[in-house]
Amino acid sequence: MTLLPTGFTASGVAAGIKKKAGAPDVALLASENDCAASAVFTTNKVKAAPVLRGQAILKTHAGQIRAVLINAGCANACTGDEGLRNADESALALATELHLSDPKQVLTMSTGVIGVQLPMDKLRAGVYSAAKSLAAEGFDVASQAIMTTDTVAKTARVEKNGYSLTGMAKGSGMIHPNMATMLSVVATDAVVSPTRLRLCLQNAAQRSFNRISVDGDTSTNDTLLVLANGASGVKPGREEFEEALTEVCVDLAKQVARDGEGATKFITILVTGAASEKQAEKVGRTIATSPLVKTAFYGEDANWGRIVCAAGYSGEAVEPDKISLWFGGVHVFAYGTPTTYNDADATNAMKPKDVEIHIDLGLGQAYATVWTCDMSHEYVTINGKYRT
Amino acid sequence: MTLLPTGFTASGVAAGIKKKAGAPDVALLASENDCAASAVFTTNKVKAAPVLRGQAILKTHAGQIRAVLINAGCANACTGDEGLRNADESALALATELHLSDPKQVLTMSTGVIGVQLPMDKLRAGVYSAAKSLAAEGFDVASQAIMTTDTVAKTARVEKNGYSLTGMAKGSGMIHPNMATMLSVVATDAVVSPTRLRLCLQNAAQRSFNRISVDGDTSTNDTLLVLANGASGVKPGREEFEEALTEVCVDLAKQVARDGEGATKFITILVTGAASEKQAEKVGRTIATSPLVKTAFYGEDANWGRIVCAAGYSGEAVEPDKISLWFGGVHVFAYGTPTTYNDADATNAMKPKDVEIHIDLGLGQAYATVWTCDMSHEYVTINGKYRT
Repeated sequence: MTLLPTGFTASGVAAGIKKKAGAPDVALLASENDCAASAVFTTNKVKAAPVLRGQAILKTHAGQIRAVLINAGCANACTGDEGLRNADESALALATELHLSDPKQVLTMSTGVIGVQLPMDKLRAGVYSAAKSLAAEGFDVASQAIMTTDTVAKTARVEKNGYSLTGMAKGSGMIHPNMATMLSVVATDAVVSPTRLRLCLQNAAQRSFNRISVDGDTSTNDTLLVLANGASGVKPGREEFEEALTEVCVDLAKQVARDGEGATKFITILVTGAASEKQAEKVGRTIATSPLVKTAFYGEDANWGRIVCAAGYSGEAVEPDKISLWFGGVHVFAYGTPTTYNDADATNAMKPKDVEIHIDLGLGQAYATVWTCDMSHEYVTINGKYRT
Repeated sequence: MTLLPTGFTASGVAAGIKKKAGAPDVALLASENDCAASAVFTTNKVKAAPVLRGQAILKTHAGQIRAVLINAGCANACTGDEGLRNADESALALATELHLSDPKQVLTMSTGVIGVQLPMDKLRAGVYSAAKSLAAEGFDVASQAIMTTDTVAKTARVEKNGYSLTGMAKGSGMIHPNMATMLSVVATDAVVSPTRLRLCLQNAAQRSFNRISVDGDTSTNDTLLVLANGASGVKPGREEFEEALTEVCVDLAKQVARDGEGATKFITILVTGAASEKQAEKVGRTIATSPLVKTAFYGEDANWGRIVCAAGYSGEAVEPDKISLWFGGVHVFAYGTPTTYNDADATNAMKPKDVEIHIDLGLGQAYATVWTCDMSHEYVTINGKYRT
């Protein structure tokens, strides 16, 4: 069982929003007192109603959040004014159940099909039932309720001296730009101001979820939210807290990448020798998002030229003659030319379920790690029939 | 049979470079007199040896090109100095056969696996045999010899008053950024200066191959080359020639999109109401490159929210409340809200082999058309086992 920090409760119930009967699809996370809150939202110009609502609320109520309502099965995106009213109304329903004076103390998130209005009768009944079920032991079922095509629920927990952080996430399809929704919520009982929380979250997101390419150019709904209720009474140093938050986020992000739709392999891409960390990340993300690279891993085909090619079109000023590349431990490319590696060794390096690519750009000292998965037949099946 | 313009000959022979025995893999196109030449090359920082060589040559010899040598089966990319020497040497072999004084009158192109050196013995024998086979009737077999995972050869021809243009192309995998090589060569007997040729080609490429997302951030080898030998004696007006060249290029580009790896559908994306043609193109290309959109078409799932979502992360300043969307003739989304369309109608609109999406941004008068294909199980199969 995944423990929650002091003062938090959670629940998950089946409200009939997902097509699969009996699957939990409404999750709650609540705090007994006001939380400092901060979130990273999608940069998509087409933002789902709960994203628009959340952005507005966090400008004025970042210190007074009490609960989060999440539904799966319907994204409430591309739903116009009716979608915004439905987001407000569902927050009000939960605020009423929790006896909160202001519905703006409730944030909402949605994931699922775009362009369909929320089934409000089902959702209202779900909120009622989920509010009744709130419990300190409710986090695991909450983490199940937010799943869409995820095959496993994703939770992470870090305990520090006197306080803790617990998070959950749902995956984002193939985990690369333009893919399905990523949602994540992290709760902590540390004492952290909204301002410090925002700074720490930005840095944590940059080295976790942004390293699996789910930010920047992504879905209508992507949201990473952190709530700090201060119930532990412990006020950690900025650096310590940022590190702990990053640890939870990296753990969740890697789980998301590992559980990419149809994934059969988990791929770690280490980019070294970059002129800057930003450059390393950009090259890594470009490799991580290449369908040609990802299908080659699925086929266990040591077609490493595709990786160098992807580095070449990353938009970064790479120099082919300085690039070296390793598959697992096999050095296949050195300073712009293939090495005399043994083809069987390179092929064998592709066989494990966890594979590491290491590319050195030969330009400097900076580095970054990016995580992704392969692209399989199952990916096409899942996404060809997502709604049916 | 695809006719060639006056003064051109072509051939294609099997040199054993492709794995499939007996498949033609060396193609030649030759002119009996010097040609004006211009090319659009990949912008990838990692450029194949023939691209580097071609770029250098066209700076000094753009009025003296006599022949093009193309091999399939090996891309001669990521091959270092040895790759450059091999490109030079194969050009020299052809120059010798054609009794040309300068090997720089021969351009070369390669497509196939990256990171492997050209098998020079096979290639030299192929060049010898292909040079002997040059004929006015040789264009069709040449167009077959440049194929890799293409399922059909692609040629196009336009006849004007007194001159003609004939082109061939090979496809580029899934036809979207970071995909396999696109090669195309167009020959004309019109009288056109190298400078005019360059200007016309840039505009033609922009409205053809760039509209299937093969330029900008693409393979190590992508090349579109045009040769004008002036043998007709006809000097067309700039506008007329650019239009004719665009017509050939659009014809070839659409064939490339239609024959994308594993494609089962040809998708036309019409973007209207844009603030600029550039914006329309960017939005269209973003939709065209979304795996979520492409798999939905494969599954005939009218999941139109993914299209609006892709427009949203295109980087263009779209405004959701102004967007409208049609599937075939079915109006599914109007000014940011789903219409009351019939779901069966939308699903039926996905059934034909040729499907049109029309998105109106509501921002201005500019428009662009982009072509693509769906993403199927077969795509994953092809690219998971490309080398084997």
